[in-house]
Amino acid sequence: MKIKELKGILGKNKLDAALFYSIGMTPNPNMVYFAQYYGAGALIVPKKQSPFLIVPEMEYERAKKSMIKKLYSMDKKKFFESINSILKKNKIKMKNIGIDKSAFTLLAYKNFKKQFKKARTKDLALDCLKLRQIKTKEEIKTIKKAFDYANKIITAAIKNFKSFKTESKAAAFLEYEAKKLGLETSFPPIIASGKNASMPHHMPKNIKLQKGFCVIDFGIKYKGYCTDITRTIYIGKPTEKERQIYGFLLNIQKNLIDNLKINGNCGKIYENCVKALKNYSKYFTHGLGHGVGAEIHELPNLTLSSKDKIKENMVFTIEPGIYIPNKFGIRIEDTILMETNPNLLTNVAKDLLTV
Amino acid sequence: MKIKELKGILGKNKLDAALFYSIGMTPNPNMVYFAQYYGAGALIVPKKQSPFLIVPEMEYERAKKSMIKKLYSMDKKKFFESINSILKKNKIKMKNIGIDKSAFTLLAYKNFKKQFKKARTKDLALDCLKLRQIKTKEEIKTIKKAFDYANKIITAAIKNFKSFKTESKAAAFLEYEAKKLGLETSFPPIIASGKNASMPHHMPKNIKLQKGFCVIDFGIKYKGYCTDITRTIYIGKPTEKERQIYGFLLNIQKNLIDNLKINGNCGKIYENCVKALKNYSKYFTHGLGHGVGAEIHELPNLTLSSKDKIKENMVFTIEPGIYIPNKFGIRIEDTILMETNPNLLTNVAKDLLTV
Repeated sequence: MKIKELKGILGKNKLDAALFYSIGMTPNPNMVYFAQYYGAGALIVPKKQSPFLIVPEMEYERAKKSMIKKLYSMDKKKFFESINSILKKNKIKMKNIGIDKSAFTLLAYKNFKKQFKKARTKDLALDCLKLRQIKTKEEIKTIKKAFDYANKIITAAIKNFKSFKTESKAAAFLEYEAKKLGLETSFPPIIASGKNASMPHHMPKNIKLQKGFCVIDFGIKYKGYCTDITRTIYIGKPTEKERQIYGFLLNIQKNLIDNLKINGNCGKIYENCVKALKNYSKYFTHGLGHGVGAEIHELPNLTLSSKDKIKENMVFTIEPGIYIPNKFGIRIEDTILMETNPNLLTNVAKDLLTV
Repeated sequence: MKIKELKGILGKNKLDAALFYSIGMTPNPNMVYFAQYYGAGALIVPKKQSPFLIVPEMEYERAKKSMIKKLYSMDKKKFFESINSILKKNKIKMKNIGIDKSAFTLLAYKNFKKQFKKARTKDLALDCLKLRQIKTKEEIKTIKKAFDYANKIITAAIKNFKSFKTESKAAAFLEYEAKKLGLETSFPPIIASGKNASMPHHMPKNIKLQKGFCVIDFGIKYKGYCTDITRTIYIGKPTEKERQIYGFLLNIQKNLIDNLKINGNCGKIYENCVKALKNYSKYFTHGLGHGVGAEIHELPNLTLSSKDKIKENMVFTIEPGIYIPNKFGIRIEDTILMETNPNLLTNVAKDLLTV
């Protein structure tokens, strides 16, 4: 995707090429995005020639399925040495190089510099993130399909919730339904019941589902694109006060979404949320939302200090929450595709459901 | 674990403290190892004082469950700024600092240096890995328990294999069984059937299981410790030649394990494997094995160039494979706990099983 735009960025910055790499098991999101390649190796995008992938021998067959046609295999133990010799053979100039400093370790940089002694590097992390925050038509098609899957899976989980005995089993159901369709989850599902719901990132435990609010936070990856949704249900019978606080948060969430506008200021949207939460705002301990794409957390940032603006074809979450330590937690999260108006990609019912 | 040993390394290197951090979703293995903490934040281990964790507010409740008693919350947007002010308040000297350069990005380093202008850093990546490769009695207890779970799950999957229609469903079963017990997988399970088995890192697809060899590579995490095992089964009826090549590889794998000795040279063990594979060695495209612990790939390395030596209480894999591109693939992998003799942690049958 957007190799042309990346080359534009290289041109503007007078760079000869961009270099992204991944060693080990964690895919580099820029390689996922620009090459649709998930494995170890390096992606080189020269300003003038076509891009190519250099991958360990064992990944070669997999690399053939990426979007990049020029492939080379490397000796993984001599990572940057292999890259250097292939680039030399191809007469690719590597003097001014764009890299992603947020995904480049100090150790890799040391090894890189041994090979490319005269290279000057420029950080393209933000440029890549900015490129990725506005989705293309093609991407939106993929993203919609991803959310179709995700919506169906979480709906099925909520429908079956009564049959789950433990937090772990509820989480296992979500992963199983994803896996059956050949999909990865975009993060380990969160099932947080009872007091556990007061921890926004609680990992599901092999314990009986507790009475009270239960937070279900779930996402899948489809063709490299992430989804994100949270619903809070109630196990047992909520008191009137509990119904009220859920309704209070839901109303705030809906209003925030309804008021999203092109060019809206993300910091301001966060502020509006805090204002609406009134006395509860001190129990809202995370950002209001984030972009979703090749990574689960991308631009824009919907936080207090954010200067980001809402633009057409952005995909991002709105997820206010209230977490009273050791008591309970509620979070309601939708992912929005911003067109002229905000469109919900997550079309799962939000009224308080009791099981 | 081993905070005392880490402090010893700090002393030897004349360092004031070690600093490990994680931003985002990927846990830092050293934080997992030294603190049993999986979230975002920073772990500071001063040479003279007790260690502490500084975590975003939303992770505070989770951090309480780590092994570290001194906790502070930080503003995630001002990551190193928050750390600096907490360290100042606690009068922790931060002039000579040990870090893990393999898990420290250039971007984080830039932000770190803004706060700790006079700090000199020293890479402790290798020291930490070396510390982690020899397991303590306490760790071995945890690791054995982890393998008990993993062995049961893969045995159940193989037993049920006939009922799986697709690669994805077989993978989903493995994840589901893990999740039900409240366990994460240590990597996305590999189910590679037919030609797909010729890609060592093939991701299971939503396609019908193909006839022929089928590689099943699976691991779980229990209390932060990884497991790793691969079995290859046969879907349909193998020819005599196929039985022979499987038996050939299995024999090599068993011999390699039987001949493991304390102080054995890892490069030499790899060489012995290549020799035994004869003409097939060119179809063996990855390392022979790797340490397993807080990370799925740790020290020792069993590769050609490795200078590592086998020591008591190391935990590592032996996993020769044969991959004929576009035809088939076989891999047999066990994880070994080295005591006076090699002990298999993976006690799942290895004779060729047909389904």
